[in-house]
Parts: sequence; C-alpha cells; structure tokens
Amino acid sequence: MDIEQSTPHAHRAGGRAAKRAARTARAASMPYITRKIGVYEVLDEEGLALIENNAETILEEIGIDYRDDPEALAVWKAAGASVEGERVRCPRGMCRSLVQATAPRDFIQHARNPARSVPIGGKHTVFAPAYGSPFIRSLDDGRRYATIEDFRNFVKLTYLATSLHHSGGTICEPVDLPVNKRHFDMVYSHMKYSDKPFMGSVTHPERAQDSVEMAKILFGDDYMDPLTGKPKTVIINLINANSPMTWDSTMLGAAKAYARANQACVVTPFILAGAMSPVTVAGTAAQTLAEALSGMAFIQLVAPGAPVVLGSFASSISMQSGAPTFGTPEPALVLFVMAALARRLGVPFRSGGALCGSKIPDAQAAYESANTLLPTCLGGVNFVLHTAGWLEGGLAMGYEKFVMDVDQAGMMHTLLAGVDLSENGQAMDAIREVGPGKHFLGCAHTQANFETAFYRSPIADNNSVEQWEAEGSQDLAQRANASWKKQLAAYEAPPLDPAVDEALQDYMNRRKATFADSKY
Amino acid sequence: MDIEQSTPHAHRAGGRAAKRAARTARAASMPYITRKIGVYEVLDEEGLALIENNAETILEEIGIDYRDDPEALAVWKAAGASVEGERVRCPRGMCRSLVQATAPRDFIQHARNPARSVPIGGKHTVFAPAYGSPFIRSLDDGRRYATIEDFRNFVKLTYLATSLHHSGGTICEPVDLPVNKRHFDMVYSHMKYSDKPFMGSVTHPERAQDSVEMAKILFGDDYMDPLTGKPKTVIINLINANSPMTWDSTMLGAAKAYARANQACVVTPFILAGAMSPVTVAGTAAQTLAEALSGMAFIQLVAPGAPVVLGSFASSISMQSGAPTFGTPEPALVLFVMAALARRLGVPFRSGGALCGSKIPDAQAAYESANTLLPTCLGGVNFVLHTAGWLEGGLAMGYEKFVMDVDQAGMMHTLLAGVDLSENGQAMDAIREVGPGKHFLGCAHTQANFETAFYRSPIADNNSVEQWEAEGSQDLAQRANASWKKQLAAYEAPPLDPAVDEALQDYMNRRKATFADSKY
Repeated sequence: MDIEQSTPHAHRAGGRAAKRAARTARAASMPYITRKIGVYEVLDEEGLALIENNAETILEEIGIDYRDDPEALAVWKAAGASVEGERVRCPRGMCRSLVQATAPRDFIQHARNPARSVPIGGKHTVFAPAYGSPFIRSLDDGRRYATIEDFRNFVKLTYLATSLHHSGGTICEPVDLPVNKRHFDMVYSHMKYSDKPFMGSVTHPERAQDSVEMAKILFGDDYMDPLTGKPKTVIINLINANSPMTWDSTMLGAAKAYARANQACVVTPFILAGAMSPVTVAGTAAQTLAEALSGMAFIQLVAPGAPVVLGSFASSISMQSGAPTFGTPEPALVLFVMAALARRLGVPFRSGGALCGSKIPDAQAAYESANTLLPTCLGGVNFVLHTAGWLEGGLAMGYEKFVMDVDQAGMMHTLLAGVDLSENGQAMDAIREVGPGKHFLGCAHTQANFETAFYRSPIADNNSVEQWEAEGSQDLAQRANASWKKQLAAYEAPPLDPAVDEALQDYMNRRKATFADSKY
Repeated sequence: MDIEQSTPHAHRAGGRAAKRAARTARAASMPYITRKIGVYEVLDEEGLALIENNAETILEEIGIDYRDDPEALAVWKAAGASVEGERVRCPRGMCRSLVQATAPRDFIQHARNPARSVPIGGKHTVFAPAYGSPFIRSLDDGRRYATIEDFRNFVKLTYLATSLHHSGGTICEPVDLPVNKRHFDMVYSHMKYSDKPFMGSVTHPERAQDSVEMAKILFGDDYMDPLTGKPKTVIINLINANSPMTWDSTMLGAAKAYARANQACVVTPFILAGAMSPVTVAGTAAQTLAEALSGMAFIQLVAPGAPVVLGSFASSISMQSGAPTFGTPEPALVLFVMAALARRLGVPFRSGGALCGSKIPDAQAAYESANTLLPTCLGGVNFVLHTAGWLEGGLAMGYEKFVMDVDQAGMMHTLLAGVDLSENGQAMDAIREVGPGKHFLGCAHTQANFETAFYRSPIADNNSVEQWEAEGSQDLAQRANASWKKQLAAYEAPPLDPAVDEALQDYMNRRKATFADSKY
C-alpha cells in the first residue's frame, strides 16, 4: 500500500546551507504521513460492539430515507431491503456485509504529479484544507464574501504548504461566479495551480460528471488503469448525509456519478449533535455509523468496489442558542469512537481537522482547533478535511488562520513519526560526553543533529520579550498575515502541458455556453 | 484510594434554576478527576525497557552529582553506592529497588477542608495553577513584576476555579517582598484565601521547615494521623534537579526537611532538551528517568515511605537562539514516554500543564497550551502543575491566560469522563422518537439532558458574527479580562478559625523578626 518515496536523507557534511536545503527538500517530498505511533482508543471491544449493535437497530427498525431518487429505492429493493415509500430498512448486518464484501480497505488517490499521489487508509494520514466557506476573513479586509481569486490564492497556498498533502475541494465558495458554473473554475484551479490531488463538485450530478470529464482530460492516457481496466481514482468527493437518517437526490446523484467512474466518495453524516442527533456521544456515534453504513452500502450496490471513506463530522451545539460549538470534548470522544468503528469495519476514515467556532484567529480559535487536530491525529484519521483555514464554524475561511493551521499540521508530522529508538536517538554517547553539570549545546551529538532535532515553527515567536517588543509586539495572527502575503508573492505554478491546459479551458467554455447562469 | 465523594445528582424535575444550581454544585464538588478513559502509549514494552536500561547505565556508569551536601554522600555510601568526590554511582537496579521497596504507589494530600483533599496517583488527575513566574501580564498593565497582591489574587481565582483542584505553590514571585521572607506570605495566602491543598517553599531548607510548622498550626490536631502515628501529608513540594545529573544542596535540603515530615516531594528533572539533555526524545527520557530515580531513591533512604512523585518537565529549544519552545511535538512524546515509565515504576507522575512560549494570550499561546494540556490528560499525568496562567516560557503569569486555561481544564474533566454507555447515553429512544428528517432539539431525551449535555465554556463566543460584532468584536483575551475582574469582585474567603489565623500570623511575625531582610 505504501507509495514508493525517494526521501533524500540529510547529509552529515556539506555545511549549514546544504543541510537546510536537504531539510526543505525532505519536507517538500513528504506527500503524506505514515504514522509510526499507535492510535488512541476510548472504548473497549464491548463498548464498540454495543454501538455497532445500535447502528444495526437503526438500520433495521427505523430505517433511512432516500429522497427523490426512485433509482436508489429500486436498487435497495432489488438487493433485498424493505422499502416503504422512501424509507429503506435493511436486515441486521446487510449494510456491513455489502461494504465488507467489495469496498477497498484502502486505495490510492492519484495526483497529476505521481510524486503527490496519496494512499487513503491504513496507517496513512492525508491533510487537506478547509472546505465550503462562503466568507473570507483576513486582517486586511475583515470579513467579506469569497471570490474566485481567494479560491485560487488558497489553492496556491495549499500547493506551497509542505504539511498539506491534498488540494482539497471547495476551499471557499467563489460567490462572484454563477452557482451553476463555479464548479468549472474551482476544479480547473486545482488542476492548474497545484499538482496535488483534489476533490470534485457534488452540488449536482451533472457537476460531478463535469469534474470526471475534466479529470479525464487532465490525466489523458493515465486516466485508465491498464492493470484493472478501470479508471484510476483521481478525484475524492464529499458526500454528506442530510442527517438524521436521510439522503437527498443531489448527494445520491453525485455519489452515483463518481462511484460509477471509480472515483472516491467520503460518505459523511454531517451532525450538529443535539440538533441532528441525540445530545450524547454514544447516540451520535450509533447514528453516524448507521448513516455512513447505509451510504457506503448503497455505493457498493451501484458500483461494487468503488472506493469509499467513512466520514464523521460531529460538533456539539450550544443548548442556549443552538449555535454549533467546536473544540469541545464531546466531538473528540465521537471522533475516537468513530475511528475505531471504521477500523473494525475495514474502510478508511475521515474526520476532524482544525475546527473552531471563533470568528477571528484568536486564542479561542487556536484552543478549539488544537483540541480537534490532536484527537484527529491520535485517533487515526486517514483523510483530514478542514486541516487549515477554518473559522466561524465553517462560515469563513481565514488567511491568517490558514497559515497558523498549516504550522500545526507540520507539527503533527513530527508527532506521528514517534520516538526514534536508534542509537542516535538514544543519544547515550551525548550523555557520556557531557556528564553531570555541563551543557549539551556544543557536544558532538547535538552538533550532528541540531538542524533536524526539533520541529521549527516558521511563525511562532520564542524570542525574548525585549526582542519581541522591538519587532513590534506582534501576535501570531500578525506574523501569519505577513507570511501568506510573502508566500503568494513567491508562488510559481507547477508546469502543466499547454495542450492539456487548452483542452481543459475548451471543455469549460463549451460547457458553460450550453446553459444560462443561475443562482442555484 | 478513592476519597469518598458525595456528588449530588442532577434532578430530573425541579425547573431550570434547580438544574443549574445542581450543575454548579456538582462542578464545585469535584475535588479531583478520576479518569474513565485509558492512557495513550507511544512505546511498547521493548521500547520502554530500552529506556529503563539506558537510565540504569547512566546511574551506574556516569553517575549523579550531589553538590555541597556531605550528608547526602554519606547516606549514599552507607547504602552501598560508589561515591567519588560528589559523584554517586549506583549499581544497576539499586535506585529502582529502593523506590519500589518503600515509596507509596499513591497517597492523599490532605486539605484543611477535607472535601478538598486529593489523591495523587493511580487514575486520578489533579490540576494546579502555574508556578514560579516573576512577571505578570494583563491586558490592563501589560508586563510588570509580580507582587504579593497578584499572588493573593491568583490564590483567590484558583479557589474559585471549579476545574482547578489545588492551590499550587509559588503561583507568581511576590517581588515586592524580601526574598528570604516572602515564603511566609505565600504559604499564609494559600492557607487564608483558599481551602484547597497547596505547596510549600523549597528555596531553602529553613523555609521548607517554616512551611511545615505553619501546616502544623493550620491542621492542629488533624496534623498527626492516629492510624499511622506519622504526620498526614498536607504539603506537596517541587524538588527540581539541576540537570544534567546534578542535585544541589538547596533542593536536597528542602527535600530532606519535607520527607522527614512525611510531606510529598515532586522530584523533577527540569530539562530544556538540547541544553540540559540530548536533543532526542529517547535520550531526554532516559536522563529524566535516571535523575528522577536518583532523587526519589535518596528520599526513600532518608525517610522510607515518604511520598514522592516522579516529575518530568521537558521543553524543546530553538536551536538558533537557544530559547525554550513549548507546545511542540517532542515534549509531548517525552511526556507520553515518561508517564508510561512512572506507571511501570509504580509511583505517581507529574508533568505537562498549559505551557507556551508566547508573550501574550494570543493564538500562539493557545495552540501551544492545548498541545501540552491534551497530551497531559491523555498520557495520564496525576499531578499537573502549570495548568493555568503560564506565559512566556514561565517568565510571566497572565491574568487572562489563567481564565482561558481554567476553561480548558474544565473541558478536560468531560474528556476524561469518557463515553456514557448507559441507556440514557445510548439514546436509542431519542433516535426512535425523532426518526429520519426531523430534528432532536425538542425531543424528550434532549429536554431531559440538555442542561448537562455538553461542556459549556463561560468565555468562548459561539454567537452569530452579527451578535459578536454588536457586542464589540471582542477576542477571547478581552472576554477573559472581564471574567477575572468579575470573579475577584465576587470572591469570598472560605471560613478560617480566627484563633488559627492569629496563630499563623504570630508565627510569621515572630520568625520574620529573627532575621534581617535579604535579597537572596
């Protein structure tokens, strides 16, 4: 399952500049994380089995609605489920069996740059930016609607971020473009301004199909896998349930289009617990599992073997105002439980990120984000949407927040690499050389390792208070503001075959001309 | 080991006000955490044994210096260690055997209010505020030297904080008082303005003895335990190693004074990795274990059975400037490793907190603090110093940071309580009642549980952006600023027998009069 990596090792000799270059190259060449530390579990076998049993009860007794999609109901009926109106009830174990029979345990999402292809599942973690915000926040502009220029900026910043492995999807909504045509420009931006893997449109089955057609143009002869005779998986897509226990025709239509093209679906109950699920962790987990099982099983019925990811998005809500709240303990518990349930089922898992409710990149945003991202990593999430930029419960994409979260994602690479127990890692030579009462700064081991010893944040300030004041007493957001501007100024696009570029633009222009702009 | 708790349960009936009162009472009456979720482990048996073996090599081959304390050297010599000059070398396994022979696996630190007594060790976690800052930071004053008034303020705020279980020790340095007399005022403040357990002075053996004498006055007839014939453990104390591999006479003297009075010592190598230990996690862990074993074994030789806690304070440093850095991944890994080593040894463990390098309570402070506190809780730390207030690598105690961290500590209570798998927790009735496509806000299960369903932050803002703007677009630090002022204004001291109060003041005044003020 591992993709071959040619990770250059740091040279012992060659001077500081060479070491720095080697370090940069190494960071840049890490296209995904392979965890070397275990996952954290909050429930034992008995607890997990209880929740699985409750999920089966939901699927059997209560059932799931498939709205406005007669084909879906026919598919379920043919498979042996009970269908009454739009309600589908499945015998215990049916959905689980369908998923386990044909869904891959893990798969590779190919990027146009093969060095950027990512494995989804197993011990791997892939970081993607936030998804879906209609608003932008920056220190310069405050809060305003997002535009396609913002979208391109975030594709570029994500391309430049060595700790993000994936270009994401609807990083922000380009509100300046017609709703029914903006998917062309978003998908094209991912293809043009990055060579990392990306996500397709899910807001209409036709837009999903457009995403697939553009991927065919981008990948050309590489689109079909000669080994399997099927398309390679080159797009991953966010298929949200309309919780509780409902799938709508838009999401079902997009899922069918992608699955039939062997593209991946992240089947995600999107749950604000207390509104769309019970106020408890165990209740939310059972419902999430039932909904996800139902969606993944449906995809396997439509396109056996199509890659699926079990997704879980769960926030708590303020029981006073009904507002979603993030970075609280309950969603972390849901995440740990769902990650374990996905492992038991045998499919990749998506959850978490750097979620927060704060409107601005302040301490609230940071506490909440860290309280989501660390469980994400310790829990063993495979595909992490919303790793960077998320503000205001997902309503706003923040430029400064993005830079701050990218830094945190970088730290997670080091955490997940675990403890080096080699002789160099044990460092007994250093302890022997230095001895009691001396210091380690100048010893041979420190000199040999200091370039790579500790994670280095590019934006944290650890200087003396005097120096920090002399540099303007800036907070983290101000330093992040300078960082993203500098990055955008230095951005260079990865090369793209001009003929491919032209073909993509031709396709978009031709398609856009066939129907009128619309607000829906 | 559990202290009997009379936790009132929330009543199902009785109206919103009664439920709110019950919730407040329950929070106020939780004097410590008993974790219901497992601990996170990063190393397996083989890895932990490797580090233990390296620690024994350090103790045997390299040895530990005991500076300026002939008694300590004599104690070690009599015990069978090799003593050359001030260097003590112990045969493999000697320190470990000494600790395991007589040190308690866990113990109770008694508070003057018995309902506030805390168990140290096992599945328990006790939160104490930050320790040792000479400076204060607030939004009002910026950064300035701390005073005894600040000290009292933080004792009061800690007393009021339902998520902090312990009054701590040198919460900040009262720089306005003479160095050689300020311990009286600090210890007295803990006794007078709080009824939570507290820490004693360690800056001179005589000051340790003063702390013990004042505790005798405070506890009166309750000081001696009739069951054991020994003093109850009523003070816990921070005994830092002078890393690498050195103990100095100040700390040794304080440790001896406390241990002989059956008071607890937190034996803590204080390590900025790269300066006081190797730049690696495994090397830092081996050295920390060796130093801690040496200190704890010495205490067991001096006072067999005296309570000890294995402490670990490890930060990374910036290899450019030498400045300590916090909230980075490497110290989290050290913490996970050391927690496991303490469990294998069979002693309580102290580490972590809400550490950060940021000068101000901004997003840097919050990311770094959360990246320390969450590993602290998942790793299984028993005694958590620095839970609230820490800024600038410990140089400054922040009023706003304190309030923010107290909120985070509250969240950890919920996290560590784990997943409720009762019928009410499973919430299948709610899922049955609501069904597909409806919402859970009004269902019976939600109504019965919403008061206690989710952790409620008193300072996070989850309102709409419009409401947040209407309320002044405040960041978390600004809301925290209003909070600590409101709390201090409403503070009421816990009752203290006037005769005891007078006796404490008599003792202090008498002792203060026996020697001149000094800056050392």
